[in-house]
Amino acid sequence: MINNKSMNYPNGKKFNENIVSNNKKIINSGNRGMKFENDINITNDYYLRNGICLIYKRPTPVNIVHVDYTRNIITEAYFEKESTTDYNGVYKGKYIDFEAKSTKLKTSFPLSNIFKHQIEHLKKVIKHGGIAFFLINFSTLDKTYLLQASYIINFYETRDRESIPLEEIAKNGYEINKGYIPRYDYIKIIDKLYFK
Amino acid sequence: MINNKSMNYPNGKKFNENIVSNNKKIINSGNRGMKFENDINITNDYYLRNGICLIYKRPTPVNIVHVDYTRNIITEAYFEKESTTDYNGVYKGKYIDFEAKSTKLKTSFPLSNIFKHQIEHLKKVIKHGGIAFFLINFSTLDKTYLLQASYIINFYETRDRESIPLEEIAKNGYEINKGYIPRYDYIKIIDKLYFK
Repeated sequence: MINNKSMNYPNGKKFNENIVSNNKKIINSGNRGMKFENDINITNDYYLRNGICLIYKRPTPVNIVHVDYTRNIITEAYFEKESTTDYNGVYKGKYIDFEAKSTKLKTSFPLSNIFKHQIEHLKKVIKHGGIAFFLINFSTLDKTYLLQASYIINFYETRDRESIPLEEIAKNGYEINKGYIPRYDYIKIIDKLYFK
Repeated sequence: MINNKSMNYPNGKKFNENIVSNNKKIINSGNRGMKFENDINITNDYYLRNGICLIYKRPTPVNIVHVDYTRNIITEAYFEKESTTDYNGVYKGKYIDFEAKSTKLKTSFPLSNIFKHQIEHLKKVIKHGGIAFFLINFSTLDKTYLLQASYIINFYETRDRESIPLEEIAKNGYEINKGYIPRYDYIKIIDKLYFK
């Protein structure tokens, strides 16, 4: 069930912490991935309300087999294999596409967290001139980094190691300090990297 | 149930007509909207395979309430109110966002086919510099037009009429001739309008 924690923005508007949440993951609510994802959703909601950019969480692809139309309830459906990333949208006309991942580990980020089809998708995004990246959260350390997809793709494809050491991430990525509103101001980094 | 019609591309690769279809609408398979939507999905699949652009159909947002984890089946879920459009993606770095609509009528396109939240969404896309449009199909006439979202938004908001006459659409839009592969080569028009 959805736990609706509500809070107020400084402008007095109410909003719902789970407003843009991925349903599948609501079920796993409370896990580290969900916490980070919620923080990203809150950040995107802030961006939306303040006219900074337009980034949406893609709905979970579900294969619907049976619907009870008398009550309008889906009574049989299956999770589909996801073929893309969690988030996409637009910033200053440019196409934005990224994946947000969280790990409990303290020294490295395991590549097993990333799926081959996500790598393939992000390669296509880059090929078509879109801006592609990862947000990687080390939940135990409370540290978060933005990494350009090209870096992760290269690491993934050469696969010298099964995980990316934290020091490599710190060296090649951009740390995002956690705030209250917005939680993770990642678009500031995108702005510096692609629009300055 | 999904009816998997398969066919071959000239390059010999198999593909599935329903490969990128919206599940909710598969249930209503056979209706005019579904036919047009499938043609757009086939077009997007062609664009994807030929490296022309990257356009995805957004999954239907579903609110999942109960999952039987022993069999991994969703046993209770509800359709969520959709807040955006059907398609988005990237072409030459730019963000693309559009809605595809079909009508059986022969002389006009009723605005009741467009939802207020879609208008609000497309206004935001334009504000952020994205490319926003509608593909409008007159199924009985077998005629299809691309209309820039700004035109439709203006018509929608002034609302002098409840529908847009076909002659207005023909005058202000761009006709897309139906082909075999790709079915509706809409990106050619986008190219002329925004990249020349």
